[in-house]
Amino acid sequence: MMDVPALVSQAREGKPRAVARLISLVEGASPQLREVMAALAPLTGGAYVVGLTGSPGVGKSTSTSALVTAYRKRGKRVGVLAVDPSSPFSGGALLGDRVRMSEHVSDPGVYIRSMATRGHLGGLAWAAPQAIRVLDAAGCDVILVETVGVGQSEVEIAGQADTSVVLLAPGMGDGIQAAKAGILEIGDVYVVNKADRDGADATARELNHMLGLGEARAPGDWRPPIVKTVASRGEGADELVEALEKHRAWMEEHGVLQERRTARAANETETIAVTRLRERIADLHGDRRLTALAARIVAGELDPYAAADELVKGLTSA
Amino acid sequence: MMDVPALVSQAREGKPRAVARLISLVEGASPQLREVMAALAPLTGGAYVVGLTGSPGVGKSTSTSALVTAYRKRGKRVGVLAVDPSSPFSGGALLGDRVRMSEHVSDPGVYIRSMATRGHLGGLAWAAPQAIRVLDAAGCDVILVETVGVGQSEVEIAGQADTSVVLLAPGMGDGIQAAKAGILEIGDVYVVNKADRDGADATARELNHMLGLGEARAPGDWRPPIVKTVASRGEGADELVEALEKHRAWMEEHGVLQERRTARAANETETIAVTRLRERIADLHGDRRLTALAARIVAGELDPYAAADELVKGLTSA
Ligand SMILES: Nc1nc2c(ncn2[C@@H]2O[C@H](COP(=O)(O)OP(=O)(O)OP(=O)(O)O)[C@@H](O)[C@H]2O)c(=O)[nH]1
Ligand SMILES: Nc1nc2c(ncn2[C@@H]2O[C@H](COP(=O)(O)OP(=O)(O)OP(=O)(O)O)[C@@H](O)[C@H]2O)c(=O)[nH]1
Ligand SMILES: [Mg+2]
Ligand SMILES: [Mg+2]
Repeated sequence: MMDVPALVSQAREGKPRAVARLISLVEGASPQLREVMAALAPLTGGAYVVGLTGSPGVGKSTSTSALVTAYRKRGKRVGVLAVDPSSPFSGGALLGDRVRMSEHVSDPGVYIRSMATRGHLGGLAWAAPQAIRVLDAAGCDVILVETVGVGQSEVEIAGQADTSVVLLAPGMGDGIQAAKAGILEIGDVYVVNKADRDGADATARELNHMLGLGEARAPGDWRPPIVKTVASRGEGADELVEALEKHRAWMEEHGVLQERRTARAANETETIAVTRLRERIADLHGDRRLTALAARIVAGELDPYAAADELVKGLTSA
Repeated sequence: MMDVPALVSQAREGKPRAVARLISLVEGASPQLREVMAALAPLTGGAYVVGLTGSPGVGKSTSTSALVTAYRKRGKRVGVLAVDPSSPFSGGALLGDRVRMSEHVSDPGVYIRSMATRGHLGGLAWAAPQAIRVLDAAGCDVILVETVGVGQSEVEIAGQADTSVVLLAPGMGDGIQAAKAGILEIGDVYVVNKADRDGADATARELNHMLGLGEARAPGDWRPPIVKTVASRGEGADELVEALEKHRAWMEEHGVLQERRTARAANETETIAVTRLRERIADLHGDRRLTALAARIVAGELDPYAAADELVKGLTSA
């Protein structure tokens, strides 16, 4: 068993190995999970969580690295969480990202972690918040969460962040892709990266149009800015930090930050509660009961709703 | 209120509008959902459910259409369910698919339906089985379920089908994509479509290698066949039907069909039960209770696990 209080205080002092151990404890179904979570709770709430999402290769890791540089210049401690929804391999940093993050790996003010969620029970929604909590408690001022935008993952990650950044690049028919993927609803800040390439202005214009940014909004409403960057040369990173800080200030002024964090915590709590109930169903009935009900469904004797009633009945009257 | 028994018997007679109404009833949260499901139960189990998945544009709809033709030649009634995990638009058939299915739309032995799952509570896992149940009860001998392979959707659809077909096409670096997406674990039958293009043999060879088809297997084990097709010309459709029927016979012989269907029914039941419990949590506490707990988490007074305990406590002692 780990000495959790000692680990937590080492993590607070910025010891990367302690942070890594804590993340491993909360990622898995460690018996000490609850002890760790309880110890972290009073230390959380200080970090500003920024989600970065976009199609594969759009420049998320390069932009993240540029943001790390920009925030380090401002003296901030930065956590980076690279979430790969398609990979079953976790821990450490991915090779490609390690290269792009190479200038930061020896910086004690930066903590970098990769996380795989494929096959993970509950996927992203389950795994990421816990790691974010550790980085937050460890004293990160800013946590950058990178996720590839495939399937529902970009929507899920938006649920984890205080501010969601959506990245596009010129060409690639990004506009249509964007509309299809529903990312137009989730971005607080948009980035047109690879602005050194042809078509960046056109992409920004199209995006401006699709977001309806030309239209009037109610005073006090947030108008998502579009920032053009060349992440590979660090260009635009300061403008991006400014846009982020503006969004954060706007959220604080309008109570939105508190609102979002509360909604996030409610979600997390509900997910854990449902998981617990699921476990209780298994404890109460064993797998055999469920299999017996399922066999009756296959035989056409029962429908799944009636079967679910049977399962739930025992649980709530126990 | 709909007259459910009348609708069900019209659907059994092959009236497409009755089938469409039933699907609409089970897709939404209709108050008659449970009545419909109970009425369908004794009529289900006759259909053979085939899932088709693969990257965008690989030829799933074209192959589905070719399969419909092949099964119609054999006198079978066929249901087609096109599931689009990225679209919020449901009902009817998608425009492109309507074109590819055009030769079948006036055939009374074919029922075609599109289904969107984006934003749908529980996504694919929730919506598809209910529609499959309707098509099954309506007397379809074969149900073809097409899903684009993005994110987890191809794994989910594999959970809904008796037999899973994974489609690849030459080029596109499909091999590596396949490995990344984990489709190597889910295919019962593989199709290399667009065999009129260069590289089809190479793709088949690579797949053969990656699946370890050259290696020895225990006797009685299923060895996924690789079928080369030119779906746009209907070539290979009969061979594909033969491969499917072989897999179905193998499953029946080894009890695998019963096993898979039971596992599927168990899953469905559990999902419904958990949804019901989630509703009870809301009924019992109201949203205010959860929000209050969430606010305490944000304030650092509580961790999400302790909050979940509070939620679950009331439920199981009630
Ligand atoms: N020309 C140009 N290339 C860039 C720019 N930013 C990133 N790149 C390059 O684009 C490629 C992909 O960049 P990444 O940062 O790995 O992209 P990503 O979005 O993290 O990719 P995944 O994590 O694989 O989805 C790399 O070769 C980068 O060097 C840019 O502003 N201009
Ligand atoms: N050359 C060639 N083209 C084909 C073949 N089969 C399908 N196509 C073409 O490939 C394109 C995509 O076919 P679809 O059947 O729509 O592919 P899909 O996988 O259903 O696509 P999505 O549903 O959008 O993911 C169409 O233009 C088809 O005509 C084939 O065997 N050979
Ligand atoms: Mg990356
Ligand atoms: Mg299609």
